Amino acid sequence: MEADLLLIPIDRAGPEPVLRQVYLGLRRAILSGAIPAGGRLPPTRALAARLGIARNSVVAAYEQLLAEGFIEGRVGAGSFVSRDLPEPLDLPPPAAPPPPPVVPHAGQYGAAPFNTGRCTLDDRTLQVWRSLTSRRLARPDPALLGYADPSGSAALRGAIARYLRAARAVRCEPEQVVVTAGAQQAIDLVLRVLLRPGDAAWFEDPGYPAVRAALAAAGARIVPVPVDAQGMDVAAGIAAAPEARLAYVTPSSQYPLGVVLSMARRMELLAWAHRAGAWLLEDDYDSEFRYAGRPLASLQGIDAAGRVIYVGTFSKVLFPGLRLGYAVLPPALLEAVRSVRLLSDWHPAALQEGVVTDFIEEGHFAQHLRRMRQHYRGTRDALVTALREHLADMLEVEVPDQGMKLLARLRPGLADQAVAEAAARRGVIARPVSPMFLAAPPIQALMLGFSGHEPGSLRWAARELARALA
Amino acid sequence: MEADLLLIPIDRAGPEPVLRQVYLGLRRAILSGAIPAGGRLPPTRALAARLGIARNSVVAAYEQLLAEGFIEGRVGAGSFVSRDLPEPLDLPPPAAPPPPPVVPHAGQYGAAPFNTGRCTLDDRTLQVWRSLTSRRLARPDPALLGYADPSGSAALRGAIARYLRAARAVRCEPEQVVVTAGAQQAIDLVLRVLLRPGDAAWFEDPGYPAVRAALAAAGARIVPVPVDAQGMDVAAGIAAAPEARLAYVTPSSQYPLGVVLSMARRMELLAWAHRAGAWLLEDDYDSEFRYAGRPLASLQGIDAAGRVIYVGTFSKVLFPGLRLGYAVLPPALLEAVRSVRLLSDWHPAALQEGVVTDFIEEGHFAQHLRRMRQHYRGTRDALVTALREHLADMLEVEVPDQGMKLLARLRPGLADQAVAEAAARRGVIARPVSPMFLAAPPIQALMLGFSGHEPGSLRWAARELARALA
Repeated sequence: MEADLLLIPIDRAGPEPVLRQVYLGLRRAILSGAIPAGGRLPPTRALAARLGIARNSVVAAYEQLLAEGFIEGRVGAGSFVSRDLPEPLDLPPPAAPPPPPVVPHAGQYGAAPFNTGRCTLDDRTLQVWRSLTSRRLARPDPALLGYADPSGSAALRGAIARYLRAARAVRCEPEQVVVTAGAQQAIDLVLRVLLRPGDAAWFEDPGYPAVRAALAAAGARIVPVPVDAQGMDVAAGIAAAPEARLAYVTPSSQYPLGVVLSMARRMELLAWAHRAGAWLLEDDYDSEFRYAGRPLASLQGIDAAGRVIYVGTFSKVLFPGLRLGYAVLPPALLEAVRSVRLLSDWHPAALQEGVVTDFIEEGHFAQHLRRMRQHYRGTRDALVTALREHLADMLEVEVPDQGMKLLARLRPGLADQAVAEAAARRGVIARPVSPMFLAAPPIQALMLGFSGHEPGSLRWAARELARALA
Repeated sequence: MEADLLLIPIDRAGPEPVLRQVYLGLRRAILSGAIPAGGRLPPTRALAARLGIARNSVVAAYEQLLAEGFIEGRVGAGSFVSRDLPEPLDLPPPAAPPPPPVVPHAGQYGAAPFNTGRCTLDDRTLQVWRSLTSRRLARPDPALLGYADPSGSAALRGAIARYLRAARAVRCEPEQVVVTAGAQQAIDLVLRVLLRPGDAAWFEDPGYPAVRAALAAAGARIVPVPVDAQGMDVAAGIAAAPEARLAYVTPSSQYPLGVVLSMARRMELLAWAHRAGAWLLEDDYDSEFRYAGRPLASLQGIDAAGRVIYVGTFSKVLFPGLRLGYAVLPPALLEAVRSVRLLSDWHPAALQEGVVTDFIEEGHFAQHLRRMRQHYRGTRDALVTALREHLADMLEVEVPDQGMKLLARLRPGLADQAVAEAAARRGVIARPVSPMFLAAPPIQALMLGFSGHEPGSLRWAARELARALA
């Protein structure tokens, strides 16, 4: 067979060594009958030239095939496909690629306290939701009955833009909004558009595991940037990777430490992004529930240069089962994100979009937020009280001004992962924080969710956690 | 700075409180450099007079700016713009990556005839949907209130597995099913797991544009495989790329030609995949609506070696706005697909999952299919009659035995893209087929959807199409 009839795709960037890619390509060609039994393989020199690789890689691949009985003959004098090949049916099923790292996620732990990301829906909201859904179904929007805009419905984008301008000082037009299946999809779409394998990406250390895994899956070079009392240490990021393509940041409540990114740091970050031509991915995941003090405006709102991609979600303010979130994009990125969204799942679920639009526009959303803010403040206080009563000598509680979870630092000598395992044996979910650190020295602490759990259940879980620690 | 040099438009009728309008106006002036670093802000009394508003609004705005680090100094004694603000940002935004190709998609054309992928929901189904939704909301499943399994709910996976075993002879356990946001997400997840840049992928020529674009976005080397009366020409595929990693195929109704993959070809395809260690991606996108004859069982159902990934959707049998589909995966791929799904958007929308589960399990789905099959057969016949009445000399209609669209081949001398443009000017959507060809010589034909359109509208559109051709 002539070398130029045999094309073996070689991916130098890929994980497989070139030698092995040649070996696998030849073996596939033999097993698929492309080179029949008794057929002659191309001379190693010709194939090496054809594939643009070193000849010794081809020679080594031929030698392995020879050793395994796929080919016969002396290397150099000519190699031929064996007439008695291993029976194809004996082949193992094709190897699946190694799966990306499975991150521990709230979905694994269900409704057990203190699982995070749980929500409460009161009867009032459920009632409204039922009637809004029925109304939408009484006169189905044509968009419901066909394929729609990959950015989501214009009505919902308008409602989101008005809400974000008023509540978060986000500067946006409805055209910049893309409605997504939760913040995770918004982040995934942005990473797929912006990152090429090997691109450097700043990541808060410690940081949010699901995004860390998404960055790894995107082939990014993750640059851990330490977090201090002012939030992400921008100077450290610049020292480590001034040329980074992107920085993922949680300015209003750092995940998992809960610190607020100071105004000085925000200005530093914007100035760097501006100089470096980098993008800032702002994940404003739980700023809606504010219990004390005024929140700082969003980072996006003080960005004059269109560097910030703002991501938010309805999963926490309404319910995760809704799977609706959004990204506010600089115009320069809009077209690319819309295209990738189209290829990934077309567009959002139209019925849910319609219900959420009505829920916002008719004032139910603001009322729901008020009621839930009050409710979650109550469960937060119940948890704090219970922890101080039962675990005062074991852990130090930080009372958060916003959000749905708190951080409890363990007494010196206690290891958070061991504590978490002991708690899990008693049906209590206490996420260890130390695994969320990369290069920075980890703290031993637990992340405890207080939303979506009733005070009684939180008190019970605090007692069980104390027993687990005893 | 003198107060009367600083004009902040105040809109008392607007949604923003006056205090906030002042705050935002000042912040804009600072960030834009209108008031330079170190520059003095007007006395609050003067600015209040200038703007014709109460002084305490201006004072409150200054205090917020002070708290956020935009200005320095003691309120009253004089306020100055902070010196550690960044330069006014005036560079162009960073270059965005080139967007992936935008494929023409049904979402662009709305409800106009003959747009494809349109659905009908009759009153019966809408009423059932309302009551099932209300029931689900009356006792919200805990899964609704927190994060859930990336594969989707066990109940829906079970219902899908039973349905596919019975209706499509798919061999699967509920554990192999992953509920997705439509077939497009199922395909996207599979490509993300299986393909590395440069991997060869067989693609039907002509073929489905959205998957072609997804393959391109995944960096695949697209290998066009011609389609004849028996469907994909497997021998041609083996000759072109025996080592391909994957083949995308629509066996029950080839997109766009509508031919059925013959049993002989199915056997050839399975044997090749088995020998070559390749994966077969079976898109069974519209097999539910069968009007005549018995459908062939799914390719997956005759695969003894676990090479076939089966993909289906509820978008067509129910409504696209639902955004629910599924993949049935060989066990070897399950873990990797679950992981990628988690990173892309966590899990399906739980409320919709629950409603669809009840809709299937309580027998409404089977009844809906029966009624819609009858309805769509009627609209198909209405379209065929109208086309033969008005366009007999212009195009040759192929009456499909299944599905929601038909293929109309144009009389020699007519170009489908020109015809489509002329039709569009009259508000009629007629998708040209020739752009769906890659290497194979294109045919000049139109793809006309007959589902989700009433007979009267189809007849009107046929007359308009005739006028466009005249």
